[in-house]
Amino acid sequence: MFKHLMAICAFCAFFPSALTIYDNKPGPLYPPTKGAIWPKPQYEEPEENYFTVNPSVIKIKVTGHTCPILKRAVDRYSFIVRNTNNLDRFDKKRPRSSLDEKTPERAVDRNHQGEFQELDVELTSQCRRYPSFNMDESYNLTVSTTAKLVSNSIWGILRGLESWSQLFYFTDDFSEVRINATNIVDFPRFSHRGLLLDTGRHYISLHNILKTLDAMAMNKMNVFHWHIVDDQSFPYQSEKFPELSEKGAFHSSMVYTKEDIALVVGYARDRGIRVLPEFDVPGHTRSWGEAYPDVLTKCYSKGQPTSLGPMDPINSATYKLIADLIEEVQEWFPDKYFHVGGDEVQLDCWESNPELQKYMKENNMTSSQLHGLFMRQVLPLLGDKVEPIVWQEVFDEGVPLPENTLIHVWKYKWVAEMMKVLKSGYKIIFSASWYLDFIKRGGDWEDYYKADPRQMVSSLHNDTLINNIVGGEACMWGEVVDDTNVITRVWPRASAVAERLWSAEMSSTRGKGELAEARHRIEEHACRMRRRAISAQPPSGAGFCVGAI
Amino acid sequence: MFKHLMAICAFCAFFPSALTIYDNKPGPLYPPTKGAIWPKPQYEEPEENYFTVNPSVIKIKVTGHTCPILKRAVDRYSFIVRNTNNLDRFDKKRPRSSLDEKTPERAVDRNHQGEFQELDVELTSQCRRYPSFNMDESYNLTVSTTAKLVSNSIWGILRGLESWSQLFYFTDDFSEVRINATNIVDFPRFSHRGLLLDTGRHYISLHNILKTLDAMAMNKMNVFHWHIVDDQSFPYQSEKFPELSEKGAFHSSMVYTKEDIALVVGYARDRGIRVLPEFDVPGHTRSWGEAYPDVLTKCYSKGQPTSLGPMDPINSATYKLIADLIEEVQEWFPDKYFHVGGDEVQLDCWESNPELQKYMKENNMTSSQLHGLFMRQVLPLLGDKVEPIVWQEVFDEGVPLPENTLIHVWKYKWVAEMMKVLKSGYKIIFSASWYLDFIKRGGDWEDYYKADPRQMVSSLHNDTLINNIVGGEACMWGEVVDDTNVITRVWPRASAVAERLWSAEMSSTRGKGELAEARHRIEEHACRMRRRAISAQPPSGAGFCVGAI
Repeated sequence: MFKHLMAICAFCAFFPSALTIYDNKPGPLYPPTKGAIWPKPQYEEPEENYFTVNPSVIKIKVTGHTCPILKRAVDRYSFIVRNTNNLDRFDKKRPRSSLDEKTPERAVDRNHQGEFQELDVELTSQCRRYPSFNMDESYNLTVSTTAKLVSNSIWGILRGLESWSQLFYFTDDFSEVRINATNIVDFPRFSHRGLLLDTGRHYISLHNILKTLDAMAMNKMNVFHWHIVDDQSFPYQSEKFPELSEKGAFHSSMVYTKEDIALVVGYARDRGIRVLPEFDVPGHTRSWGEAYPDVLTKCYSKGQPTSLGPMDPINSATYKLIADLIEEVQEWFPDKYFHVGGDEVQLDCWESNPELQKYMKENNMTSSQLHGLFMRQVLPLLGDKVEPIVWQEVFDEGVPLPENTLIHVWKYKWVAEMMKVLKSGYKIIFSASWYLDFIKRGGDWEDYYKADPRQMVSSLHNDTLINNIVGGEACMWGEVVDDTNVITRVWPRASAVAERLWSAEMSSTRGKGELAEARHRIEEHACRMRRRAISAQPPSGAGFCVGAI
Repeated sequence: MFKHLMAICAFCAFFPSALTIYDNKPGPLYPPTKGAIWPKPQYEEPEENYFTVNPSVIKIKVTGHTCPILKRAVDRYSFIVRNTNNLDRFDKKRPRSSLDEKTPERAVDRNHQGEFQELDVELTSQCRRYPSFNMDESYNLTVSTTAKLVSNSIWGILRGLESWSQLFYFTDDFSEVRINATNIVDFPRFSHRGLLLDTGRHYISLHNILKTLDAMAMNKMNVFHWHIVDDQSFPYQSEKFPELSEKGAFHSSMVYTKEDIALVVGYARDRGIRVLPEFDVPGHTRSWGEAYPDVLTKCYSKGQPTSLGPMDPINSATYKLIADLIEEVQEWFPDKYFHVGGDEVQLDCWESNPELQKYMKENNMTSSQLHGLFMRQVLPLLGDKVEPIVWQEVFDEGVPLPENTLIHVWKYKWVAEMMKVLKSGYKIIFSASWYLDFIKRGGDWEDYYKADPRQMVSSLHNDTLINNIVGGEACMWGEVVDDTNVITRVWPRASAVAERLWSAEMSSTRGKGELAEARHRIEEHACRMRRRAISAQPPSGAGFCVGAI
């Protein structure tokens, strides 16, 4: 009942059936590619030569350094490649044995180079314990009569294994699995490629957090930004302050224990993903007040206290609680960054409070300067070894910030904001164009795809400054997602952000063609995710995915 | 990171904690009701008196007529009430036996009226075989020291059982299940309360179609409009014309067989739901052309045929194929209505075709009149016993239509369209405000809720005409939904349409209060759906649902 926008056929050479002046073509809107990697590698020379694959005999051999992370990755990718390419899944009439025998009537095909045997994995230096900002994620992958993956870093090996697993594809009739010969040199364009999940507005089960990490690994994202608590609930189960979740969580079953967090951190580490905790202060803290009302400000209306607002910035108990909690959180989250929030502080509440009015008057301060004072007192609590990340308001209010602070840009007029931040010498994480809670009918991943934060500030003509945009994050705020829809809402929409942050920038001349090509690749990628039990929703329009679980 | 619109507290008497001038309140945005029915009954007198419930001993006793539909309904609702109110699910530490014993330390509560024992179900006339347009769905339900459900119709009994099952609720600590005394007189405002599912743009599994029927029954919807095929694919597996799906389905596994359809029809009938088949002609038929290209029109560009368009209206083979297919479809779908589509015909394709140009010239016709000619030839193929439903274009083009034809209004300027249709004496099904494929960030169910088709044409000042709007349908077009997200995308958004079509109209004076109250009821209802394994997404904002499966 609804006409599609007419699809311009940039790809007619590859998909002749798409050539039509009408929008009623049968079959998928964008036929998927076969064995195309998402996010697109920096350099790839795919060949027409291919190998057939018997998934059940595929081997991965470690030839260089090894470590538990690598061993588990080899087990994982062996399983993935065998399981997602299991032909039995597509044709129940086909007995397993027929696959193990050579098909005798195979037509002669000059591109066929025999059967794929083994991937050799060579890690040329020792493993690191945890992924980190600016870690090396580069790798080289060659598929030829022998297939070889080489990297100087365990994180590069993980990225390469993922790419290799994506090269396998089915023939149209699902009778055969193939992998084409290719040569890949790959590395990320941005260091910080994140996804924010908000577990304060709705509780998200551990199951779906782990599934999110699986999906992130498939998209080479490397930062899980855990916006763990907010006004509405406090699911972080502190050992030092158990009342925070006892009184602040939605329900006693809706908490994250120390063990849960250790599981998430370990699962993420095995996939080269950092876990960045956020405890947003002084705003978005109403749920803290269920257990500790005294650390929040009483908001006044017509001379009467009516509700609780942001944290009380002149109460020493506030800073004591934050300091003690941060100490515990840093023990549970090994990352070298800590997100202290600082956004959307209800300054009007502070302005309504008689004590704070008095304090501001005595100290000749505005409420905005009070916010600055608050952040100045909180930042040192992180200690020497941990760098802060703050939402842009903290920079905007002129708080003196440590040199390595990352400024998280999310608000309107983001280009002007980024210019200002960069000129001040700070580094940026960008999210303004990538708020996944805003949704259109379909295909909105294209808007995310076209948003390139470095291109936005290209008028600076200063590569050093421009490159201080070190990455970005897709943000899945939690008001309208819970366990029912968080996976389908995020994927494959966040995949567009993932490719923007990993792959080469779109060329100004060929950009349209690159987007048109991406429309076909993301169809394959979404189906690939579904075959690995991640319920990615349809990216753009009509289509189908065989073998989804 | 995103401020909620300030929620006006229309309900502060019931939810005092929501009284705040700030938007940062802890806990759910709209705390759910307890034991409130969705859609809201026409008349209800809830009392403060309540009964405690031991779900494992609840009995339903049939005292009047009975039949297989009723027997299965009793089994189903016995299971639902026992299973969804199973306290063990909420507190694993609580041994089953403690529930079976009387709690000795129970505080005296004057509202407590003892334990709920049994529901007596009295059907006062014989069962019908299939639900039908204008069937009787009224029922009376009393919960007192004895509970009684009475209806003159099996369909009313089904609606009453659903209402009864929704009355149970948990105490805040999940230690007890309760049901309040109440007295309900209920019947629907509109006869046709439908949901359209499009299985042509993406295949939807039988599993999710049956789940959709479960959800419809929970919302007292009574028409499953199955838009089964479209341009993109033909999953209906015809016995007469097997090539239609062999060549037109996305994949051999993505078809609906005769047995599948029988299962859907039977499952729906057991829930008082009609299954309305749509085979949309002459547009939206591109997939038919994979097997039968000759029944489609060749579209021309610059003197050359470039693609296939709508059906060929001057080829007798077209009508033969439609006639034979309709005959089969009518055998498989027992409903007395048949939707023949008729929307969005690419008249420019017809105008581009030399043969049709010649025909139109010879007969002094426009392409729009050709559409009329086509429909005039198709409608009689339905036979005497089946009434047609058509998309509004068929009416707009002045096709002579049988008196009982229902006109399905979906396009812009729907108010003017409805006035015109009603003045012409036809009946209307309304969908224009209820296209579920258009989605906003959250809370868009409120827009559906506020759309009342009869109120839109109240300026007619003619109740007979106004009441010729006999119902409506929420439409879930398939471009951007498949098995991954169809259930979460439809529910609880379609619940808003369901209540609009079942319950009394919103009063002009109290409308705001009714909407405010509905915000709390839909939270309970969405959680109730989740407890019955229907993944309804969050309706409005922050919240939680305990015991979801």
